[in-house]
Amino acid sequence: MIGTQTTDKQNAMNETSPVCKTFNKNDSAKEFVPTANLDDVSEYQDLFEEFGASFVPKEKSLKSLIHDMCVEEESEDAFYIVDLSKVVRQMLQWKAYLPRVTPFYAIKCNPSPAIMRIVEAMGGGFDCASKQEIGAAALLLKGENDKRIIYANPCKLPSHMRYARGAGVEMVTVDNEDELHKIKKHWPDAKVIIRIVTDDSHSVCRFSSKFGAQIKDCNHLVSVCRELDLNLTGISFHVGSGCFNEIAFVQAITCAREVFDIAERHGFKLSLLDIGGGFPGITEEGKPSFIQIANAIRDLLDELFPVDQVQIIAEPGRYYACASHTLVTHIFARRKVHKINPEDDGSDYLYYINDGVYQSFNCLLFDHAEIKSVRSIDMSEDFEDGTGNEQTGPKLKSTIFGPTCDSMDCIVKGIDLPVLDLGDVLYFPDFGAYTVAASSAFNGFKTVIMKYIWKN
Amino acid sequence: MIGTQTTDKQNAMNETSPVCKTFNKNDSAKEFVPTANLDDVSEYQDLFEEFGASFVPKEKSLKSLIHDMCVEEESEDAFYIVDLSKVVRQMLQWKAYLPRVTPFYAIKCNPSPAIMRIVEAMGGGFDCASKQEIGAAALLLKGENDKRIIYANPCKLPSHMRYARGAGVEMVTVDNEDELHKIKKHWPDAKVIIRIVTDDSHSVCRFSSKFGAQIKDCNHLVSVCRELDLNLTGISFHVGSGCFNEIAFVQAITCAREVFDIAERHGFKLSLLDIGGGFPGITEEGKPSFIQIANAIRDLLDELFPVDQVQIIAEPGRYYACASHTLVTHIFARRKVHKINPEDDGSDYLYYINDGVYQSFNCLLFDHAEIKSVRSIDMSEDFEDGTGNEQTGPKLKSTIFGPTCDSMDCIVKGIDLPVLDLGDVLYFPDFGAYTVAASSAFNGFKTVIMKYIWKN
Ligand SMILES: Cc1ncc(COP(=O)(O)O)c(C=O)c1O
Ligand SMILES: Cc1ncc(COP(=O)(O)O)c(C=O)c1O
Repeated sequence: MIGTQTTDKQNAMNETSPVCKTFNKNDSAKEFVPTANLDDVSEYQDLFEEFGASFVPKEKSLKSLIHDMCVEEESEDAFYIVDLSKVVRQMLQWKAYLPRVTPFYAIKCNPSPAIMRIVEAMGGGFDCASKQEIGAAALLLKGENDKRIIYANPCKLPSHMRYARGAGVEMVTVDNEDELHKIKKHWPDAKVIIRIVTDDSHSVCRFSSKFGAQIKDCNHLVSVCRELDLNLTGISFHVGSGCFNEIAFVQAITCAREVFDIAERHGFKLSLLDIGGGFPGITEEGKPSFIQIANAIRDLLDELFPVDQVQIIAEPGRYYACASHTLVTHIFARRKVHKINPEDDGSDYLYYINDGVYQSFNCLLFDHAEIKSVRSIDMSEDFEDGTGNEQTGPKLKSTIFGPTCDSMDCIVKGIDLPVLDLGDVLYFPDFGAYTVAASSAFNGFKTVIMKYIWKN
Repeated sequence: MIGTQTTDKQNAMNETSPVCKTFNKNDSAKEFVPTANLDDVSEYQDLFEEFGASFVPKEKSLKSLIHDMCVEEESEDAFYIVDLSKVVRQMLQWKAYLPRVTPFYAIKCNPSPAIMRIVEAMGGGFDCASKQEIGAAALLLKGENDKRIIYANPCKLPSHMRYARGAGVEMVTVDNEDELHKIKKHWPDAKVIIRIVTDDSHSVCRFSSKFGAQIKDCNHLVSVCRELDLNLTGISFHVGSGCFNEIAFVQAITCAREVFDIAERHGFKLSLLDIGGGFPGITEEGKPSFIQIANAIRDLLDELFPVDQVQIIAEPGRYYACASHTLVTHIFARRKVHKINPEDDGSDYLYYINDGVYQSFNCLLFDHAEIKSVRSIDMSEDFEDGTGNEQTGPKLKSTIFGPTCDSMDCIVKGIDLPVLDLGDVLYFPDFGAYTVAASSAFNGFKTVIMKYIWKN
């Protein structure tokens, strides 16, 4: 598809060119139809049972499931429903659409032991950002740390580097000269992977201000690897989290090829390409789906990186974690606002739920997440499955707060909702990425209960 | 001092007046000189030893102490130095300047077992926001929960209310009608304290959008207490954290008096005033000191709330925690930015330290903190105590990042610093309030090491 665009070596050597060649979207990409069944997960039942996951029939709606769980439990603690079959299906889809690319799950996104175990059992590896994450991955892998862990934090503490080396990890990303000297000192036999910057202007979370070597600096970095006699092995990038455009991947892959060529001119034969994270976990309007990204890069990878010479890996995080988790909270307090003037701005009702921006909703501050709609369950009524018990009645401007004593702990302001009651449930599907991972226990609150399920 | 301003009952009953009478700063306040020695803490040595605190002579500078600790340890983990004598001195100062007001330490600010133990040993109580915090306080108090714990979260989970009741807690704040019905159901014998809103426009963290009953609604709330036969006991407020003006306290105290009068008209004789938190832990330019606030309210409290009839408590958090903690971090990675044009905006050096906005520096996002200056220690040179080893040389625009893979994890941008080296130390004094308390373990990083010291 993009085969007419060959790598421009002249351009690669042009030390001041900040961004590599720009590709245009190619709509004539041939359609790719996977042959495997991506829906049946029955053969993974043992894996689900390891975590005591309950089987839930396909027909059962999420809403009705949550209703039943809340009625049974009588507890009012917030909890997560973790659908393990979704993680398996994501892996099946990955293997079907990008068979050549081994996913190294970015643990930072959600260090769930269940997600990690499924990734491990299905042949994936782990992207670790610290000693602690390496420890967690190593515990699962039992001896394949050399091949299935990449220490993908370009800026590392020396003590963490020594720990990684001691644990048998081999692959590590680097993006600056000081770091190469640290590698020489603390981990001279590491397989060094240079992380390059990409044009991340199409992503929600842009990493290039903090990480990544400029293409114009790569010649120098490669020569430092040569001087220090380091084992330069590959190139990586990260297009940024929440990528708006599959062209970002195409561009970054092409840049990586240019740096492969630079390395070759210094006598290095690189054997690893790491295409990073940024693959969406759900399909969002205005953003490419995983399948669109896969279709845009599948052939390009083979073209630029010969199958028999280069291993390709990726570092997906949200792709695995996002859809697997649904957060279930309770309205435990409520305030009717007595407006002096009914025309007043501001909400008519304030609700307080038992998870907030200091806990799972930290994604509102850190991951640019936004709560656009709120799903509620009226717990006072009998639940009719199928239709669900939709709250009816007029909708009023409502504000939802988290449980802490801080007024910044606000989840959404001025959203239209029917009048809800104490004890009603609010739930948030697709809530597994960058939520629990950076949750604190501020004010003593933290959602820790995980209820595992699987569907088929 | 403010004695000429009597409470205006007419105004209190004016249901639409949102804010109570405004006072003007009175500069002629008579000077108050405490008689006790507020500096010698030797009699608390046993308490310091409980936590294995090392004695550090007064003359030893913080910088030199940190240097020695880092040299001795060889570890590069970030840590806190916790000066327990500062907590004791804050308590001595409190008792001297506000002898009538019992401080209930707001655990949420920093649930340090050491701070809590000192507060407990010196006769303070605890402001708890959740079941978890009540559990921690109860463990220390061993049986005085009725008098020394206030459950000061106006919006409570029913299960937490039942827990509090079971633990013998009696005092609880409430600010809306739904909550009064919850109290009736789950905790009918509680000592109910109505939290009122205050004019918090002078505070950095403004709470009135989330908590507090409007004065105009108090009449109704009190009558609901009467109907439900609740044990209405007192009034509380919270002027907001980081208060810019002691007048905020004066106004709030006056409002509280008005609500006392409202309650009286309903036949309630209130016996508790809770003046909340918001007392500064350090003196900051443009903000009143603790002593200024104390001087502004001491006589007023006696005037409006007869000593023999009303017990007065407060909920200071940062006052105790702020200055006690110093965060010590290491520069573990560095990047020299190759500017194409030396005139380019942006930093010349990027530094990476082992604590960031997902950990202790969450205060940058949540507590409106700002890093205005950075203190560094050159670890490559011999340390000359007295002068300190000031880094010299030209200052360059520098950016300091936290350790995680997120580019939002940035502590300060474009600050002028000498060129620092890998292994150099950056330290942050007065870092105990709203730092560790809401720290997460994102990417596997979390500062957990506490080194206790005391000085005399
Ligand atoms: C180096 C690296 N790899 C992978 C990821 C995962 O990104 P995503 O969850 O968007 O796939 C991140 C996210 O911060 C990252 O920093
Ligand atoms: C109800 C309540 N009391 C006391 C405090 C402590 O405030 P400070 O640390 O500013 O004294 C807070 C802070 O959030 C609070 O919400």
